[in-house]
Amino acid sequence: MANPTAAMLVIGDEILSGRTRDANMHHLAGELTEAGIDLTEVRIVGDVPAVIVDAVRALAGRYDTVFTSGGIGPTHDDITADCMAEAFGQAIDVRDDARALLQAHYDKSGVELNAARLRMARIPADATLIENPVSAAPGFVVENVYVMAGVPSVFQAMVASVLPTLTGGAPLISKTHAIFRGEGDIAGPLGELAQANPDLSIGSYPFQRDGRYGANIVIRGQDAATVDAAIAKIAAVFP
Amino acid sequence: MANPTAAMLVIGDEILSGRTRDANMHHLAGELTEAGIDLTEVRIVGDVPAVIVDAVRALAGRYDTVFTSGGIGPTHDDITADCMAEAFGQAIDVRDDARALLQAHYDKSGVELNAARLRMARIPADATLIENPVSAAPGFVVENVYVMAGVPSVFQAMVASVLPTLTGGAPLISKTHAIFRGEGDIAGPLGELAQANPDLSIGSYPFQRDGRYGANIVIRGQDAATVDAAIAKIAAVFP
Repeated sequence: MANPTAAMLVIGDEILSGRTRDANMHHLAGELTEAGIDLTEVRIVGDVPAVIVDAVRALAGRYDTVFTSGGIGPTHDDITADCMAEAFGQAIDVRDDARALLQAHYDKSGVELNAARLRMARIPADATLIENPVSAAPGFVVENVYVMAGVPSVFQAMVASVLPTLTGGAPLISKTHAIFRGEGDIAGPLGELAQANPDLSIGSYPFQRDGRYGANIVIRGQDAATVDAAIAKIAAVFP
Repeated sequence: MANPTAAMLVIGDEILSGRTRDANMHHLAGELTEAGIDLTEVRIVGDVPAVIVDAVRALAGRYDTVFTSGGIGPTHDDITADCMAEAFGQAIDVRDDARALLQAHYDKSGVELNAARLRMARIPADATLIENPVSAAPGFVVENVYVMAGVPSVFQAMVASVLPTLTGGAPLISKTHAIFRGEGDIAGPLGELAQANPDLSIGSYPFQRDGRYGANIVIRGQDAATVDAAIAKIAAVFP
């Protein structure tokens, strides 16, 4: 049976300007692979409402689950919650459950829950909250979309709390065999192996190391014996 | 006048599985910002022909320029050139100009230009070649799409040769002011500053450093004096 599919929507001008190198996508990709959920598409968009709304609708319609990161803080450029409400036709306002979480958090540190911080309690009407053990301001799930923070430590904590609730498929087994030959030499036998094993994902990733050319052959599949057999076959041709 | 817009399409299962952390997007983002071209959207897709074709058509229709990375090597999973030909309704076959580049390169090292390597000379009929000073196999330009290699050293060399041929706008001036206060304290005055300066892009990026909370306020715009004035204003409120 095919694994469930997922997409990610990264929201933030700072990634597109090159100021920040995204780390959340790489983290989520690894976690989903281990959980047996196929990350199939990622989109990165800026802080532009119409673009965010279009992208999340397109992805939510096409994949089983969508994860977003970014834009749920207290400043004027944090517009993700409002965009999600618009995308799914839900009302949005400060919600009592989210406000209570923030109030408890700021009471502990004696910080005022001012108007800006209260923006983080704006949650679409039918959404379910996602716990934020780092800084309290919750993420939320609306339809099949998991809306999470952009700060990597918070994003990772939210992923950790959400993943066990998702039904994954068989985790992918991945084996790598390094070959110190040009990809052009490897391509023929590798293509035949790929054709003989349509259930496996067989990739070739060239490298240059200490002045020598080579490629990592990565074979992925759900059945360990099949993956091992394929690795053994290509290793027999290129030890 | 608004800057020209660009999108990037990253092609490769290895990014989506979490095996490889993409470096090309971050590189291109920085280069485009310096050139005054607005990177507006990035999509990352796997080695699936229909998905690649759909994505490149959508992006090419929406933005002035599209850059792709990945999938132009000699192995069976290198399908980008064929996808581009399909997306733009062009014929594709081994082209004499591309074959000559490869022949010259492999003659020098005494390596055979076999059938697999010849795949790298498959170029859509009306495309223009992009030089590859690292390993000869060319990229190409088809319509408004620049098709480049996934190996970072080759990708960067291709970007360097292509960028001077593109017409950019005014490069963005970017200034940062770090404030050691919670974002919730900064949000009010920052929102007013953003409203008073619709021509500036004003972002707030929270951090945690040595146990202290804060946020980097990043102000970007095309006019240095306006950017400086805005930085001075927020610095007056939060020194």
